[in-house]
Amino acid sequence: MQELVNILLAYINKSFKRSSKVLDFHYPHQLKEGLEGFSLELPDQPDNLEQLLVDCRDTLKYGVKTGHPRFFNQLSTGLDIIGLAGEWLTSTANTNMFTYEISPVFILMEEVVLRKMHSIIGWPEEDGDGIFCPGGTMSNLYSVLLARFHRFPVVKTHGMSAIPRLALFTSVHSHYSIKKSAAVLGIGSENVIVVRCDERGKMISSELNSSIETAKSKGLVPFYVNATAGTTVYGAFDPLNEIADICEHHGLWMHVDAAWGGGLLLSNKHRVKLQGIKRAHSVTWNPHKMMGVPLQCSTILVKRKGLLQECNQLCAEYLFQPDKHYDVSYDTGDKSIQCGRHVDVFKLWLMWKAKGSEGFEAQINHCLENAEYLYYKLKRRADFQLVFKGKPEHSNVCFWYLPKRLQSTLPSPERDRELHMVAPKIKTKMMEEGFTMIGYQPLEDKVNFFRCVFSNPATQREDVDFLIDEIVRLGCEL
Amino acid sequence: MQELVNILLAYINKSFKRSSKVLDFHYPHQLKEGLEGFSLELPDQPDNLEQLLVDCRDTLKYGVKTGHPRFFNQLSTGLDIIGLAGEWLTSTANTNMFTYEISPVFILMEEVVLRKMHSIIGWPEEDGDGIFCPGGTMSNLYSVLLARFHRFPVVKTHGMSAIPRLALFTSVHSHYSIKKSAAVLGIGSENVIVVRCDERGKMISSELNSSIETAKSKGLVPFYVNATAGTTVYGAFDPLNEIADICEHHGLWMHVDAAWGGGLLLSNKHRVKLQGIKRAHSVTWNPHKMMGVPLQCSTILVKRKGLLQECNQLCAEYLFQPDKHYDVSYDTGDKSIQCGRHVDVFKLWLMWKAKGSEGFEAQINHCLENAEYLYYKLKRRADFQLVFKGKPEHSNVCFWYLPKRLQSTLPSPERDRELHMVAPKIKTKMMEEGFTMIGYQPLEDKVNFFRCVFSNPATQREDVDFLIDEIVRLGCEL
Repeated sequence: MQELVNILLAYINKSFKRSSKVLDFHYPHQLKEGLEGFSLELPDQPDNLEQLLVDCRDTLKYGVKTGHPRFFNQLSTGLDIIGLAGEWLTSTANTNMFTYEISPVFILMEEVVLRKMHSIIGWPEEDGDGIFCPGGTMSNLYSVLLARFHRFPVVKTHGMSAIPRLALFTSVHSHYSIKKSAAVLGIGSENVIVVRCDERGKMISSELNSSIETAKSKGLVPFYVNATAGTTVYGAFDPLNEIADICEHHGLWMHVDAAWGGGLLLSNKHRVKLQGIKRAHSVTWNPHKMMGVPLQCSTILVKRKGLLQECNQLCAEYLFQPDKHYDVSYDTGDKSIQCGRHVDVFKLWLMWKAKGSEGFEAQINHCLENAEYLYYKLKRRADFQLVFKGKPEHSNVCFWYLPKRLQSTLPSPERDRELHMVAPKIKTKMMEEGFTMIGYQPLEDKVNFFRCVFSNPATQREDVDFLIDEIVRLGCEL
Repeated sequence: MQELVNILLAYINKSFKRSSKVLDFHYPHQLKEGLEGFSLELPDQPDNLEQLLVDCRDTLKYGVKTGHPRFFNQLSTGLDIIGLAGEWLTSTANTNMFTYEISPVFILMEEVVLRKMHSIIGWPEEDGDGIFCPGGTMSNLYSVLLARFHRFPVVKTHGMSAIPRLALFTSVHSHYSIKKSAAVLGIGSENVIVVRCDERGKMISSELNSSIETAKSKGLVPFYVNATAGTTVYGAFDPLNEIADICEHHGLWMHVDAAWGGGLLLSNKHRVKLQGIKRAHSVTWNPHKMMGVPLQCSTILVKRKGLLQECNQLCAEYLFQPDKHYDVSYDTGDKSIQCGRHVDVFKLWLMWKAKGSEGFEAQINHCLENAEYLYYKLKRRADFQLVFKGKPEHSNVCFWYLPKRLQSTLPSPERDRELHMVAPKIKTKMMEEGFTMIGYQPLEDKVNFFRCVFSNPATQREDVDFLIDEIVRLGCEL
């Protein structure tokens, strides 16, 4: 075990070193064929310990250093050492968020952390409930599930055939998990009505209102609106107060998907972007994104106490015995749709102890400063073009790189077709060389563009400069 | 970090020591008030590193040693050192099962491990798909979701209102997650038809058949049957071949919930209990239970390739770019209802390398021998009564302890009422003293009884003897 720890500590050190590569890329068939004695196949007979250590080293070698200061590919980046320590302890404790009797400390920590998050949102003290979930998509699924049950409790026992045809609303820039939830829950993805956004990616609230009216006139029953605080690609914040007004007017459940933007609530400078969030009925907030907590750490926060329990409990006595000697309301297993849950709270709790709320604030402000730095640099250059005007609200910066021959061409479908292929080509070279990593995607009528996101506090301005230089180096000949 | 490692290694050593306690129980209010400087509250300012190490030590101190050889409380017990090493590596790698580009090695490992599990089930090589999920309940939910989509693909886009009223079938001893899934998916928990079991807890297949006929006659559309291989309480195996015949006859999806019993497939001696499993359309199998893999490690295995993808994909181009430079069928994120998933495969892969299939077989056989040993010991005693006749099929042993005054009383409602209170009383004392831990529950007409389960390879006969003595010591005066 100590030898493995040495391997891991060496890996951690390497992750933070700018001179080391972010990844050592191999194609699937290369890894499958086995590289220098690294075989994925499973044996009948045991391998020896030495081979296992080699396997561990190789697994890390051929992976991606998501903690590297030049890894910009995902919303979750970085490698917080205290958070990691918390995760090592969690796996050593090897228990389940199921009942108080097998997780007394973690169950209480969950309560404390959730209460803290409620108070940051601004919910009254007596309100508030929630649960840690395996990812933001599951958190959003919970929100739709709760909203449906809240409006039509009979659905739990009698299903969708006992209630009218429902409609829910989300913006075109929102996360696809809302549609996925509707598909899973038996509502149907087509009953998710997609509301248009402005050019910054914010939901247009008047469009929301008219979509609701239209749905009603078609005989659908609107029940739920998802507002996004920090969209995946643009990092846009929907106008929460306007949306809350509309939800109140129509009597709809308001959910805020703040998976990505929730962290900004910890910043006195930036929390204004989420003004109105306290009017939501439920909030998704992933500490594993902007707060830099190791994967996974995601929450669904619910304003109305008791609803999670009512919606999900089945009171299986063989699992949750009511005649225990302690207060069984701490047996949270029946609140969840999962039964046993992984312990995701401890690393966050430990990080909070280590940083304090102020430490989170400082690291979040730092990430947004990096985004602003990148934005101003790109704005001044002729070989880059920003996807939308104006300073980024979150740490997302979206841009095209323009190889020389495209810099002077006027916009045309032909130019778009060519520009569309630039980002994938650069990304391919970038991954093969392995010094940095950034994502790209098309969106609506926009052809492939890069999206840079900052959530790693280890990233500095020199890394931003490096990224720009690297894109130019790889792309200038295209 | 090294200091934390020392704390963790000391904890691991203690977990395996018989002389150390399994738990140091405190009531919720005691832990919340703070014990000797252990405070759960979250600060604005950072705590110092020394305090954090104390917090880590205390978190472990007030928790439950689920790896202790005398912890019999859950289906998941034990602390496999290689598995734990795998989990430490996983958290250090800190990535997501989302796309090949950020998890190349883990994505391929998932494919290799799932293929191995398919071949153990007995599915043809060209078939087979699957995914690791956050727990067996989610695996079972996937099975219902897939079965519904397979029968009525339109449900994904148009919801339950576009299809007839469905019915699904499971036994009265099956896990409550089938009902939970029906509630979540909008089918409704009342449309889960519960089929009677024999006195050993096995589904009565003729009852299944008549339940299907009855549902049809009421205008419901049967589409899914869950058969359990290893029930939670009795450890019973439903007659899979008989159920498969009925499913074939009626054209229904057959799922096998082998969350608990799946491990027995690795034992040449015991796999006969799952005969017929290869006829299933989907299987839930949790390596974190009988195979002793650290939490969480659970799979849903699906016979028909491609169905998971068809059912769950939404092809969000901003997340899954089709124009990448590698084979994007390795981007598994769109197969899942989760989007990003925790990496659960590596610890299992590493354990498989370390033990080989034969190592798993030996440890599973050992657990079942412990169960048999306990069974024969209890059978001979007057102060214990087995809940059902016959040798256990799995490692579950269910029994009442009879305090002296109940040993000579004839069965009566009055005696039942008293017997019902014995197990909770013993459990209370047991937890307060902390030397061992075992669960109890009522089931159908049976009043509270103990259920002992063996899944920890570190448990030996002396621990079984200890458990019996401890129950007698704590209960004889009741």
